[in-house]
Amino acid sequence: MKIVIVGGVAAGLSAASQMTRLAPQAQVIVLEKGSDVSYAACSMPYNLATPGTPVEKLYALSLDTIQKERGIDYRLNHEVTQIDPVRQEVAVSDLVNRKDYREAYDFLVVATGNQSNRLTTPGFDGEDVFYFRTLDDTRRVKNFIREKSPKQVVMIGSGYTNLEVAEVLFEMNIKPVLIDKAALILPMMTAETREKVLDKIAEKQLDFFVSTDVLEKSGSVVKTSAGDFDADLVIVAAGVRPNTKLFADAGGELGVAGAVKVDRYLRTNFDTIFSGGDCAEHYVRQLGTNGYVPLGPVANKQGRLVGNNIINNQDMRMFFGIDQTAVFKFFDLTVGSTGLHEKQLQDLGKSYAKVSVDSPTRGYFPGGGRMRIVLLFEKGSGTLFGGEIVGQDVVAKRLDILATAIYNQMTVFELAELDLSYAPPYSPVWDPILVAANQAIKQV
Amino acid sequence: MKIVIVGGVAAGLSAASQMTRLAPQAQVIVLEKGSDVSYAACSMPYNLATPGTPVEKLYALSLDTIQKERGIDYRLNHEVTQIDPVRQEVAVSDLVNRKDYREAYDFLVVATGNQSNRLTTPGFDGEDVFYFRTLDDTRRVKNFIREKSPKQVVMIGSGYTNLEVAEVLFEMNIKPVLIDKAALILPMMTAETREKVLDKIAEKQLDFFVSTDVLEKSGSVVKTSAGDFDADLVIVAAGVRPNTKLFADAGGELGVAGAVKVDRYLRTNFDTIFSGGDCAEHYVRQLGTNGYVPLGPVANKQGRLVGNNIINNQDMRMFFGIDQTAVFKFFDLTVGSTGLHEKQLQDLGKSYAKVSVDSPTRGYFPGGGRMRIVLLFEKGSGTLFGGEIVGQDVVAKRLDILATAIYNQMTVFELAELDLSYAPPYSPVWDPILVAANQAIKQV
Repeated sequence: MKIVIVGGVAAGLSAASQMTRLAPQAQVIVLEKGSDVSYAACSMPYNLATPGTPVEKLYALSLDTIQKERGIDYRLNHEVTQIDPVRQEVAVSDLVNRKDYREAYDFLVVATGNQSNRLTTPGFDGEDVFYFRTLDDTRRVKNFIREKSPKQVVMIGSGYTNLEVAEVLFEMNIKPVLIDKAALILPMMTAETREKVLDKIAEKQLDFFVSTDVLEKSGSVVKTSAGDFDADLVIVAAGVRPNTKLFADAGGELGVAGAVKVDRYLRTNFDTIFSGGDCAEHYVRQLGTNGYVPLGPVANKQGRLVGNNIINNQDMRMFFGIDQTAVFKFFDLTVGSTGLHEKQLQDLGKSYAKVSVDSPTRGYFPGGGRMRIVLLFEKGSGTLFGGEIVGQDVVAKRLDILATAIYNQMTVFELAELDLSYAPPYSPVWDPILVAANQAIKQV
Repeated sequence: MKIVIVGGVAAGLSAASQMTRLAPQAQVIVLEKGSDVSYAACSMPYNLATPGTPVEKLYALSLDTIQKERGIDYRLNHEVTQIDPVRQEVAVSDLVNRKDYREAYDFLVVATGNQSNRLTTPGFDGEDVFYFRTLDDTRRVKNFIREKSPKQVVMIGSGYTNLEVAEVLFEMNIKPVLIDKAALILPMMTAETREKVLDKIAEKQLDFFVSTDVLEKSGSVVKTSAGDFDADLVIVAAGVRPNTKLFADAGGELGVAGAVKVDRYLRTNFDTIFSGGDCAEHYVRQLGTNGYVPLGPVANKQGRLVGNNIINNQDMRMFFGIDQTAVFKFFDLTVGSTGLHEKQLQDLGKSYAKVSVDSPTRGYFPGGGRMRIVLLFEKGSGTLFGGEIVGQDVVAKRLDILATAIYNQMTVFELAELDLSYAPPYSPVWDPILVAANQAIKQV
């Protein structure tokens, strides 16, 4: 059996690895148009902070390991330019040797990832404007910082990634100016969580402008509806969109957010073509339908399942889905959410209640802090719909308690019955999760 | 309505507070034989390390707050010497004013806690021998250390508390020698977890002797079957037992481990007497029956429920129970377990499998470490029975993911489907919990 995988980052390499693990005799070819092997994209902001650590340290595996130990025919700088789903072959350009060829497949995996939305505003095509999405973007930003020693960065967009990058640059003494055209930062979060992020932005005295249009860049000045800003460097994170042109041109069907439409087995509209990762849809358990939540863990999980479902094609498993869990670091805060967002609940017309509870994260033991927990739950039944935590100390893995609760469709009554661990270095006697659950019970 | 509570630490104060909260007009009398108000007992080891912080900093609330804000008639140095369940009254000794009196009640709460097993070995009655269980014990140990500057401590018993105290004393340059008569440290833990604790003991070059009998103490020398040890200070933690004499003398029925026998409503064999905390039984959900697990959170939860069930006596709620979750810190390790122990599974004759998986706790981001996760689960079904984690970084709240899974009777197949949070500062892309679950699946 011969499998061709288009794209070799998270989902692509996961799929390939699972296939050679399950079927060592299978021929697995990964065609990656870039010159970097699969890398830890989410770690890119933090690599900026360590000039002595090359970006290649983020490689998930060396090319040698991928090829020799895993037995994957992993080809860098090979771009797929066309898919022919009838003949079951792809057209490939070897970008280094400038050679075109065709590669037949029994199964194809579309793992083409996503791309940054580009700014078309005048002046944003210079060498001091960066999109921070690929390892090569990181390499270029890092080189620019080393060579030009920028003092001020204008950051367009204030999503997770730009907030992470803003912190890193701030700590490197590169002053961030954050510009967002939207009226609200983190629009999927509740106002209660957003408030804490805004408080931190104020505490750090970051320049931050919402409802602001970027008008043009002229030399090193970024002109906006909120005024002009000097920019030694510009980083744009104005959303992403799935890379689907190749697939769509071949007659492939697209779905939510323009991503590759997949069924629960991660099959596309072609029986021999599967898809996963940032280019594909992701099944959201609570919605009972596909959404688009391009994050690292889901790409890895989908990739692995695609590998399984191709090799065990007569015994496929359904993708079990996600609960939209996401988290990021912003200075001493961790900000995370799991389950349905308040806005989704409103759009779905759900009858819900919300509590927001501020708690210390430890009692007597030093090193603790404070956290805010927001619970969203159904009026009447108390079923937990979603949770957010923003604060210090251990936030992410407390959020995972809520993610586990949501997986199990627990009510806030049940949440209050959990036997959570307690010792002074880790928690107050009543863990903040239990405190929040007990408050929620009063609002059911 | 008049309620008398015997004992004012965790369960006693929780019950009292809940009652005055629900029924401000109720007369709530707490009779505490000690001279300290309710305190954070689990934090006592860490208070040792800060000589400048008085032990009274561990008070949960000031006496003034308890009496004035919460409206509780909280009497220190008042010992209950007899319960008369027929007349519904108790005999009380005011230890300071040396006055005896009787107090009638509509409802009585037995919250008498537990006590250390005393060593009857010759020589262990001196002023350099301590039991580390009450705030007053802590006060006395602290004074002794300040006055005598001990260099070596012989610690008898190697349970959670003595391991916590050993770390604290070690860091204060008081060399611990740990002696245990049992063959195994942490006998309820799996060998896999125990190994990591023993590795840490070896790394710190602590003297540690198992299967060792303490023969006598002569002057400052502790004689044991493993040799003689100089002891400037001795700390004994050779198990605890519930304080039930008062209750038993009144005809009260005892249950598991000699604790006060309670039903699911936390009633004793007398309709008007309730009990909770370290003197009482604790419902273990997975066993479907009562056990004896004297820990802070369960005492607080039971106390609160007792308060509720007395005030709302016509609408009582069942105690929801525990899953035996417990955790402690030992140097840079956190050691915790939740659910059924391997030994319990063996005693129950369960058909179980076990996996032990070592993982890094973060990928690229600095500050991580390694952890070992042990999962115990049913052969055939894969239902999670228990979990242990030992290691660095965030252990306790990861353990709580397993506690939440056990509450929900999840299988390891389901555990592998959790959508746990990921960002480089908090976790690898595949959280160690998911890695362990995926390994477990292969053994079902």
